[in-house]
Amino acid sequence: LTTLREIGEFEAIRRLTRSREEDRGDRAAAPRAGDAHGVILGAGDDAAVLRPAEGLDLVATTDAFVERVHYDPALLSPREIGARLAAACVSDLAAMAARPRWALHSIGARGDHDVDALIDLQRGIADALATDGAIIVGGNLAAVEDEEWMSLTVLGEVARGHARARAGGVAGDLIAMTGRPGRAAAGLALTLALGRDRPEEWRELIDAWIRPASRVAAALALEATGFVHAAIDVSDGFAADLHHLCEASGVGGEVEERALLDDPPLARAAAKVGRPIERFLFGPSDDYELLLAIDPAGRARCEQAARGLDVRLEFIGRLVAGAPRVIRVGVDGSRRPLDPRGWDHYQR
Amino acid sequence: LTTLREIGEFEAIRRLTRSREEDRGDRAAAPRAGDAHGVILGAGDDAAVLRPAEGLDLVATTDAFVERVHYDPALLSPREIGARLAAACVSDLAAMAARPRWALHSIGARGDHDVDALIDLQRGIADALATDGAIIVGGNLAAVEDEEWMSLTVLGEVARGHARARAGGVAGDLIAMTGRPGRAAAGLALTLALGRDRPEEWRELIDAWIRPASRVAAALALEATGFVHAAIDVSDGFAADLHHLCEASGVGGEVEERALLDDPPLARAAAKVGRPIERFLFGPSDDYELLLAIDPAGRARCEQAARGLDVRLEFIGRLVAGAPRVIRVGVDGSRRPLDPRGWDHYQR
Repeated sequence: LTTLREIGEFEAIRRLTRSREEDRGDRAAAPRAGDAHGVILGAGDDAAVLRPAEGLDLVATTDAFVERVHYDPALLSPREIGARLAAACVSDLAAMAARPRWALHSIGARGDHDVDALIDLQRGIADALATDGAIIVGGNLAAVEDEEWMSLTVLGEVARGHARARAGGVAGDLIAMTGRPGRAAAGLALTLALGRDRPEEWRELIDAWIRPASRVAAALALEATGFVHAAIDVSDGFAADLHHLCEASGVGGEVEERALLDDPPLARAAAKVGRPIERFLFGPSDDYELLLAIDPAGRARCEQAARGLDVRLEFIGRLVAGAPRVIRVGVDGSRRPLDPRGWDHYQR
Repeated sequence: LTTLREIGEFEAIRRLTRSREEDRGDRAAAPRAGDAHGVILGAGDDAAVLRPAEGLDLVATTDAFVERVHYDPALLSPREIGARLAAACVSDLAAMAARPRWALHSIGARGDHDVDALIDLQRGIADALATDGAIIVGGNLAAVEDEEWMSLTVLGEVARGHARARAGGVAGDLIAMTGRPGRAAAGLALTLALGRDRPEEWRELIDAWIRPASRVAAALALEATGFVHAAIDVSDGFAADLHHLCEASGVGGEVEERALLDDPPLARAAAKVGRPIERFLFGPSDDYELLLAIDPAGRARCEQAARGLDVRLEFIGRLVAGAPRVIRVGVDGSRRPLDPRGWDHYQR
């Protein structure tokens, strides 16, 4: 164990930089290689110099995880924590139909932090970014005394006019979602209940929380159909994010419970931890899945695009004229409002 | 006083976004206005969509401040803290001769943090960025339990091939610096000694620490002469950063003490706080000034460029062939090595 205090900030940054350059050499299977990354000057100078592709727009997002608030180092490995943070940012770019390219991390670490654990954290970020061909180009290391934290900014590119916003949905659009809502929340609840023990029977749900899949390829394929009107990623929870999309688009929504409730592993998990399945389905859950408003004429094309990537795409409702409220349509045809409450870090 | 816990994360983000949009409207004197900022989609979606200018390279840097480690909320106002963080990032871009354009902040704040204080912090960042025509385009708000922190990523642009790296200096180049080294460290020492009381007699030095001037315009004007071979900003301290430039360029350096020691306010401050002036001059000091390696043929042109902007530019030594060591040349011609020790956040 070598601590930050022992080797100091400069040497730690040198090791972090060297490690990610070496790892990059090993990652021969990455979609882009060498200077195809568009990096004119990487780490080691005052700033990174990047060459955006001609005629594309730049898309930028930032997210942060705080020790104990967003992750418990006793439950997740440094690599898993890093990968989840990268997934959070990549998911924001996927929601815009942008392809991630470059990332800068900022880490607040105590002096007794093991340098190799920090390298593993960075490796988790880098591996998750590599799925979509993006790389870390810079960072910052700050000393903290109490809680540790990490912040990540990811830059991506999108063809002009093709960044898919939350606004743009119109009454009559179909609501579709990749993956299944609530599985990340269930995975988190199971992890809290089971600790680092991760039995095979819960793997699907625990993985949904610990290593959410990138939806960048699906987002690009769906955008390419020309039928996606609006998109958001589910990071606050299904109800909260669907309300965000409806508010931005100035429409209401209706969702069919039938399509959502039919998730046997989720039902088993809800029973296991003693909570109603709806708490997972609709409440706070950082699923990092796409929620889309799709022109009904494009349903078949979108289904085909998703199938081609082996990504589940479920059509679960529609946008309707009116105030940005969402109605749950029960299996028996009953209609009741969906509470928009999502995750709020200050009000729990 | 309205706390984050009272209004919650979403409402706080709404207020932060609204506040900076309103402020921007008031800032009519900003060099760029309206969509000249190249913002296709600003805050309120999953990510910001930006339109880089054609044919330019993108330059990206990130920095972070931690409560108590980098700032004491009892000594600096939220606005001053924000402005210093922006200055740190802008200085990195100035060192590369890049013009700042867009910024994303990530703030870790306790639930009892006053929302208006957070808005003031953001205002400090935005005002400092506005000097160079850059704007905040996105951010993140994370709940913390202990220490607060803020991380800022700033993106800038530079003409292709004109990003000025630390490498590139050659033996024979002159070493020049804007401003005066050590003044920020002296300003910090005075602030620690005097508290929030800031007597007029120390204003110059306290300002050097609290509100360092942007060197972007100077960097662009110097770069335009074509005579700058290498550049770095002084953020760790004169000795540390000059060594960084020498290491990256693969040369040694010689600096004339005569030019540096002649700073009467700094000498008075050193006496006041009872420390040798060299501790300020050469040691840890985040001056956010430019340290440059300049072709001797360009000296007059560079002096003229700096004069035109009313920026002090002092020629203080030269690069020499050999190992990346720096020699201090005393007023009496004596020669001794300059200790490369700079600021290290983990080893003090």
